[in-house]
Amino acid sequence: MENGIQSAGGTLAEGRRLRLGVVGGGAGAFIGQIHARGARLSDRWQIVAGALSSRPDVAQSSGRAWGLDPARSYTDWREMARAEAARPDGIEAVAITVPNHLHYPVAMAFMEAGIDVISDKPLVNTLDEARGLIARQRETGLFFGVTYSFAAHAMVRQARQMVREGAIGRVTQIHVEYFQELALLPAEAAWSGTPWRQDPAKVGGAATTADIGTHAHHLAEFVSGLRMTQLRAEFHRLGADQPLEDTAFMTCRFEGGVPGTLLVSQAVAGASCALRLRISGSEGTLEWDQETPEYLDLRPFNAPHQRISRGHGAGMLSEAARFVHLPRGHPEALSDAWGNLYEEFAIAIEARRDGRALPEGRIACPGLAEGAAGVAFIQAAIRSNAEGGAWVPCLFET
Amino acid sequence: MENGIQSAGGTLAEGRRLRLGVVGGGAGAFIGQIHARGARLSDRWQIVAGALSSRPDVAQSSGRAWGLDPARSYTDWREMARAEAARPDGIEAVAITVPNHLHYPVAMAFMEAGIDVISDKPLVNTLDEARGLIARQRETGLFFGVTYSFAAHAMVRQARQMVREGAIGRVTQIHVEYFQELALLPAEAAWSGTPWRQDPAKVGGAATTADIGTHAHHLAEFVSGLRMTQLRAEFHRLGADQPLEDTAFMTCRFEGGVPGTLLVSQAVAGASCALRLRISGSEGTLEWDQETPEYLDLRPFNAPHQRISRGHGAGMLSEAARFVHLPRGHPEALSDAWGNLYEEFAIAIEARRDGRALPEGRIACPGLAEGAAGVAFIQAAIRSNAEGGAWVPCLFET
Amino acid sequence: MENGIQSAGGTLAEGRRLRLGVVGGGAGAFIGQIHARGARLSDRWQIVAGALSSRPDVAQSSGRAWGLDPARSYTDWREMARAEAARPDGIEAVAITVPNHLHYPVAMAFMEAGIDVISDKPLVNTLDEARGLIARQRETGLFFGVTYSFAAHAMVRQARQMVREGAIGRVTQIHVEYFQELALLPAEAAWSGTPWRQDPAKVGGAATTADIGTHAHHLAEFVSGLRMTQLRAEFHRLGADQPLEDTAFMTCRFEGGVPGTLLVSQAVAGASCALRLRISGSEGTLEWDQETPEYLDLRPFNAPHQRISRGHGAGMLSEAARFVHLPRGHPEALSDAWGNLYEEFAIAIEARRDGRALPEGRIACPGLAEGAAGVAFIQAAIRSNAEGGAWVPCLFET
Amino acid sequence: MENGIQSAGGTLAEGRRLRLGVVGGGAGAFIGQIHARGARLSDRWQIVAGALSSRPDVAQSSGRAWGLDPARSYTDWREMARAEAARPDGIEAVAITVPNHLHYPVAMAFMEAGIDVISDKPLVNTLDEARGLIARQRETGLFFGVTYSFAAHAMVRQARQMVREGAIGRVTQIHVEYFQELALLPAEAAWSGTPWRQDPAKVGGAATTADIGTHAHHLAEFVSGLRMTQLRAEFHRLGADQPLEDTAFMTCRFEGGVPGTLLVSQAVAGASCALRLRISGSEGTLEWDQETPEYLDLRPFNAPHQRISRGHGAGMLSEAARFVHLPRGHPEALSDAWGNLYEEFAIAIEARRDGRALPEGRIACPGLAEGAAGVAFIQAAIRSNAEGGAWVPCLFET
Repeated sequence: MENGIQSAGGTLAEGRRLRLGVVGGGAGAFIGQIHARGARLSDRWQIVAGALSSRPDVAQSSGRAWGLDPARSYTDWREMARAEAARPDGIEAVAITVPNHLHYPVAMAFMEAGIDVISDKPLVNTLDEARGLIARQRETGLFFGVTYSFAAHAMVRQARQMVREGAIGRVTQIHVEYFQELALLPAEAAWSGTPWRQDPAKVGGAATTADIGTHAHHLAEFVSGLRMTQLRAEFHRLGADQPLEDTAFMTCRFEGGVPGTLLVSQAVAGASCALRLRISGSEGTLEWDQETPEYLDLRPFNAPHQRISRGHGAGMLSEAARFVHLPRGHPEALSDAWGNLYEEFAIAIEARRDGRALPEGRIACPGLAEGAAGVAFIQAAIRSNAEGGAWVPCLFET
Repeated sequence: MENGIQSAGGTLAEGRRLRLGVVGGGAGAFIGQIHARGARLSDRWQIVAGALSSRPDVAQSSGRAWGLDPARSYTDWREMARAEAARPDGIEAVAITVPNHLHYPVAMAFMEAGIDVISDKPLVNTLDEARGLIARQRETGLFFGVTYSFAAHAMVRQARQMVREGAIGRVTQIHVEYFQELALLPAEAAWSGTPWRQDPAKVGGAATTADIGTHAHHLAEFVSGLRMTQLRAEFHRLGADQPLEDTAFMTCRFEGGVPGTLLVSQAVAGASCALRLRISGSEGTLEWDQETPEYLDLRPFNAPHQRISRGHGAGMLSEAARFVHLPRGHPEALSDAWGNLYEEFAIAIEARRDGRALPEGRIACPGLAEGAAGVAFIQAAIRSNAEGGAWVPCLFET
Repeated sequence: MENGIQSAGGTLAEGRRLRLGVVGGGAGAFIGQIHARGARLSDRWQIVAGALSSRPDVAQSSGRAWGLDPARSYTDWREMARAEAARPDGIEAVAITVPNHLHYPVAMAFMEAGIDVISDKPLVNTLDEARGLIARQRETGLFFGVTYSFAAHAMVRQARQMVREGAIGRVTQIHVEYFQELALLPAEAAWSGTPWRQDPAKVGGAATTADIGTHAHHLAEFVSGLRMTQLRAEFHRLGADQPLEDTAFMTCRFEGGVPGTLLVSQAVAGASCALRLRISGSEGTLEWDQETPEYLDLRPFNAPHQRISRGHGAGMLSEAARFVHLPRGHPEALSDAWGNLYEEFAIAIEARRDGRALPEGRIACPGLAEGAAGVAFIQAAIRSNAEGGAWVPCLFET
Repeated sequence: MENGIQSAGGTLAEGRRLRLGVVGGGAGAFIGQIHARGARLSDRWQIVAGALSSRPDVAQSSGRAWGLDPARSYTDWREMARAEAARPDGIEAVAITVPNHLHYPVAMAFMEAGIDVISDKPLVNTLDEARGLIARQRETGLFFGVTYSFAAHAMVRQARQMVREGAIGRVTQIHVEYFQELALLPAEAAWSGTPWRQDPAKVGGAATTADIGTHAHHLAEFVSGLRMTQLRAEFHRLGADQPLEDTAFMTCRFEGGVPGTLLVSQAVAGASCALRLRISGSEGTLEWDQETPEYLDLRPFNAPHQRISRGHGAGMLSEAARFVHLPRGHPEALSDAWGNLYEEFAIAIEARRDGRALPEGRIACPGLAEGAAGVAFIQAAIRSNAEGGAWVPCLFET
């Protein structure tokens, strides 16, 4: 760990840390923890309030573990929104890490309280809810970020810029897959931490498609720069006996008619978090794998394969270089990506609060448009599957 | 290269080498060369005759390069069939390595001459031709082998036996893909060595599906032990402007309703011969990649991944052990796989010629049934694509 | 990111964060940043004071960037030690991230002020300095941690416990190497960020051996559980023209006579931070590579290779499980390892301050003993090289 | 397997196959089999005689399995040399695959009979024997090839040419290692197939160093183009209790003072045939691994890593292109490398027999010079180890 490093730059007022509240994330909730790790690592935030659980004992014990002032450790997010909005030192943003069906009411409550929102994905469960949030965001001008965190890896930013700058020529086909093994557990264990994931009322009619399919969909669009316009989907239940799908195979079209496939399954034995994107163009193919996020494989036509690794200096494009915190070979990973995301959120929120424009070309973090696109994707997949795999348009229509 | 080795066994009469003739394979024809390498490496064959080219000069010069008696270097395969059948030392089998549309008449000519046949894939271009060969084979009792060579790798045999013996539990999904980059060349160069591949009249209505799709189809069936029953296909042309598809995306069903996907493209930049099979079951996933054929990756549910490598001793199952020629870590590859295939052909043909039964459980090389299944697969894909991606049955019906 | 997670546990009083000061780490100093990332990620620390640079402007601007109270942004570490010791809310520990020759006086100054110390490696430049720190530590009872950070990866802890529990049988040979490419830069650029690294007066007579050799030495001892007793070293200058070695090849003996090799070079083109450890035993070999820290490769005798990955559940031993923050397949990396280290430092320091014993079996972070062992290693290598590669004992003698 | 291919060329008279005899190689002898596979695959040879075993029953049964005329299946290699020399259709070369101590007398016998020699490595057990063969070869003008087979892989040829053409700049350090696990077997089993390997009288004082160390030594010299001039060696016995070393660690110097290391062990659990070469230069590092022979990794300074794979077209240098038999992605492996070697032997032997000069730049197969260099290497290692690891010169002196 011996190489020099240039400052990653940034526009947040020096030393200032925004005040963050968290809804969800109580004991045992992984997703709240990972939000918190990102916020801490970015050094742009302090977590000062939370509705970490609806159970008072869990809320208090989790709040103590997080070092919260007990008075700001709430059990009711509505109360939290009101109370924090009323404090002079109230939170400047809320991170929403609750089950899917609560994203909408929680986000609405904080927006009504005038507080910027950072929400986990999928954004909401219905297109109407998505439209509702968009309308409210337009009225209020509040910031709304959605944590498609994988797209915050430096090498994903590198991939996106390479595609945009023509490194693989004209994009011709896109393949993305995301495999896990969770659904192979016995039914009572498979979703033990998150039983709502197989509750149709809480996830909007799709399980795996909503949970990890949206990540795959966003990543493909983000890196290719092309929106998915149509899809055909077939749903399967290959693991534990559950109400909803644990597997979905899709073929799809992106803008310009570019064909592709999207395969997701939580019933692939031996798969942990196997999200892999391949984008082929007329001159090369790019591949990125979430489990080895520091590497981007470029396979040019009729030439040696190249493995590009994150680091200062040669070959790192500007959008990736911004997120190089450690020298090449000193690996960053998922916490660092969340740190990148929370840094972008901080920059955007501070700019909004200060009435400044966003720094030019500085922010690529996803917002309501990307969140709504994910909802449209889920709904299209559900409909296509119900129609026997028919082609269904999947762009979000406001 | 220092470890002891047990004899790979076999039942061919010691030291006897069968006499082989080759149709196709003249200068520049890769596929003829690889047949010949397999035959030589097996040490079960001597190549004594050929119709290596229809051009007399090429036939003669290629024949000289192969060390053929000039009198047995033919330019017309019909004449070759007649002449060899008439010789007391005539060929005992013919290897057919010509363009697809000639497989049928050449095979018929040699069967009529009473000579056993080894044909490249796809077997033929139409279901009727396949039925014709099957009928003739039943009448004559001749041996008919089809060179789905990838299935002759020791580790593919290992995979098949592992699946059969339950190493991954109940098979739940199957994914196979085969990517190459050839079609990205300019149209005049892409198929320069094999221009007939984009001639609908010579390949039966599909190019890439027939060429490499059949390999993917056979490999998936061979290892899973499950036949593909239905498919949906969409064809694309993503590379050079050509009459036929260079890319096909399929979803499919195997026996028992097991779902899967089959993706083939010859327009993937940077891909050489990227044939990859993944079979997932209730207890594990197996993966094999043609470009690193010595390894078989087993990923059990919730346990460390394992990489099984070919070699004597621990973990090698009987059907793979038979084809272990070199100790673990001393890699074998495609020529060795073709050697395995030609060894099986030799054993089967000698048994037939000697009126003996095939050695029990000794022969797994593909024949007319597998060849016909490939033709049915191609025809189903063509039809599904024409019908907008409808589900189409794809089992061969006699 | 969908799996449940158990709390990583810990014994620090809930919500309490220790007050940390940092010496070194001003603008452009990578090593200070990585300390800070670890402290933040652990959530056990708040950085409240610093002597980030001896240049007042840099100290102030860096202090602002870190959000320090300007009154606690010092330019002189002696003054910082005195002032912080005098404050009721003074720092509870200092992190020393300055050039090697300053480790000793800075550590002494803070120990004299009664403040616990966390020092970067190598501990100091001479054996006498090491003895001095040890004596002072014995007198004061203060905590003294040394940041051999690589040993704080979960999978390194896993490897250590596996060796101890016999997973590879009796250890028979140990190979460790650490390669970088920095020294191939032109002389004026190679060490531009850290010119003191090639200044014999500041690094105690060895450059690469002190810089990265100590990491390799510590990692080998830590995982094997065996101390290196003797070594033979040869130094080379293979890159830019510099006063000191950029490359050292060593053979060595560990306790019990176990032989090994240690190779370090900062003149290996294309190497970023290629630290790789292989420990072979009578029943298996373990391999860990710093650039892919989530994987531990176990290669049992005559059996399939296994790749063990970090995560909850199957196969994770207790000392690794403690540091599993994210589910399997959601990669952690170097910042997370530094977080682990700073968590252990916090637990140890709080226990000392509260007069409690360290939690049983809970702390494996390195301290003065490991730091002194590194100094003895460097000095032995220098002496062996000077004596033409003679065998030299390398255990630290108090 | 669909790409066109250009003929690999060559200068052997078309269709002619040289007559080969084999000494050693009876039932169970791996090394004889691999010679035979190479000879067959090259299509330049026919094996027509053998002294496959000194036991008459084994000699006859092995001879039958190889298809030899029983009259040319000898039990005594002296008789074979005499008888074959007397036949008008006698063998044109002999392949020597017997234990090390017999290499010398067998080679001498066939040279005296005027027959060209192909010998396995190590050439012989003493420097005097090496000098004897060289003297005799000078007198007779016979061809003498030594089967350092790994150097016949296309990608090793590619590596050598890349180094020579400056792809990695000035060579600065060389590391080669070769690990196997055989010696961890119980003593009675470890060398069961080749018990003479641990018999000092039969292997000239070193076991593993002679067996696999010579491969590592040759490969390093061959690719770097630099001869090893000095070495320091330490021998260890880490596996079964045996008279000779199973492990040797060396540091060494190559021409121009380039330093390096050479590590060999047959007591590394989980290692099959792990021969790996790394050559670093001022501008890049090349790495080749015998177990994945189709890939050559180029790691340029401060640039993405490249993986070069064997195949026609882009990037393949002339000396590698000559040995491209199959298109990129259709893997070749060890049998193919032996085929390359036997092709070169055939070209050289035919040229000698026809009184023609060797084709310019066409032959890179090793001969007596390389064989003798290996003997000098073994003897230097033995001496250095005996002298406590002293520096010992290791160039062969005639």
